[in-house]
Amino acid sequence: MTVVMENIHDPHNVSAVLRSCDAAGVMDVQLIYTDVDFPDIGKKSSASAKKWVELRRFKNVNDCYKKLHEEGFTIFATHLEKKAKSLFDVNMTKKVAIVVGNEHEGVSLEAAQSADGIIQIPMFGMIQSLNVSVATAVILFEAVRQRIAAGQYDKSKYSDMELTKLLKTWAMKE
Amino acid sequence: MTVVMENIHDPHNVSAVLRSCDAAGVMDVQLIYTDVDFPDIGKKSSASAKKWVELRRFKNVNDCYKKLHEEGFTIFATHLEKKAKSLFDVNMTKKVAIVVGNEHEGVSLEAAQSADGIIQIPMFGMIQSLNVSVATAVILFEAVRQRIAAGQYDKSKYSDMELTKLLKTWAMKE
Repeated sequence: MTVVMENIHDPHNVSAVLRSCDAAGVMDVQLIYTDVDFPDIGKKSSASAKKWVELRRFKNVNDCYKKLHEEGFTIFATHLEKKAKSLFDVNMTKKVAIVVGNEHEGVSLEAAQSADGIIQIPMFGMIQSLNVSVATAVILFEAVRQRIAAGQYDKSKYSDMELTKLLKTWAMKE
Repeated sequence: MTVVMENIHDPHNVSAVLRSCDAAGVMDVQLIYTDVDFPDIGKKSSASAKKWVELRRFKNVNDCYKKLHEEGFTIFATHLEKKAKSLFDVNMTKKVAIVVGNEHEGVSLEAAQSADGIIQIPMFGMIQSLNVSVATAVILFEAVRQRIAAGQYDKSKYSDMELTKLLKTWAMKE
């Protein structure tokens, strides 16, 4: 499972998304920044999550999606539109990439149209929007729920050798 | 469904929890502030959610839980401990109150011990904690999922007359 952040400007939001990813066991996150530079995620605010989550940067949607497709991911963009499927009706036990967008405009039209599917969180309030890190967490933990139910957490997907390598990589980061 | 916030100090966190509540259709929130005054939720940051969510204030855990029990709520506190049940194994389709705690210490021992049950979100990362508004949203939307699956959203729980009254109350708030 992976998360794609598209043009999220506020470093606090980037950090908060990373923290949600870490908590849900997501270890790789893709960043697409087409209209601005990659945000400088302050050492302090993102502190721990940045250390555990691997970031991959792309300059456009196409490059990112191409790479993810090559790696076997099905790409779901979060977007408010009629053909969006409820998060709870999507099978999240496969290799899925979740695209979350900008604080103000959501994901771009290009990122939505090129995705394999559109999902949305059913909401019942008057505001009809969630902070991006909150929405990401709700989606990721629904995936966690489905994966627990499917017995996918019973064994680690990493071999002992891979785990040792990961631990070494982490140890070498500040 | 209702949420109990215990001694959450940061007004931004209070606002963020209220926004998550609104999105999940929670219309009543309880505040327990034993060690500090009730936070002044800035008009700007909490903007919309504060308008739609009804707040009830308590000076101690006992008064709050007593009131909720009288109203028929089962109270679940979020707390890290061995006897905690996974969120995904708890029936959230009944009348449930979710207690979320302070940013730093979580819910108090009193609030945990007096609750009817302890729940936790299964986490897999290195940090093992979520921001309080994120955790609240993950719990509330699991309840939403269960309630959708149980067909509880097919009809409004409000009569037309009650809805008209609610709309009037909202219209009168700034």
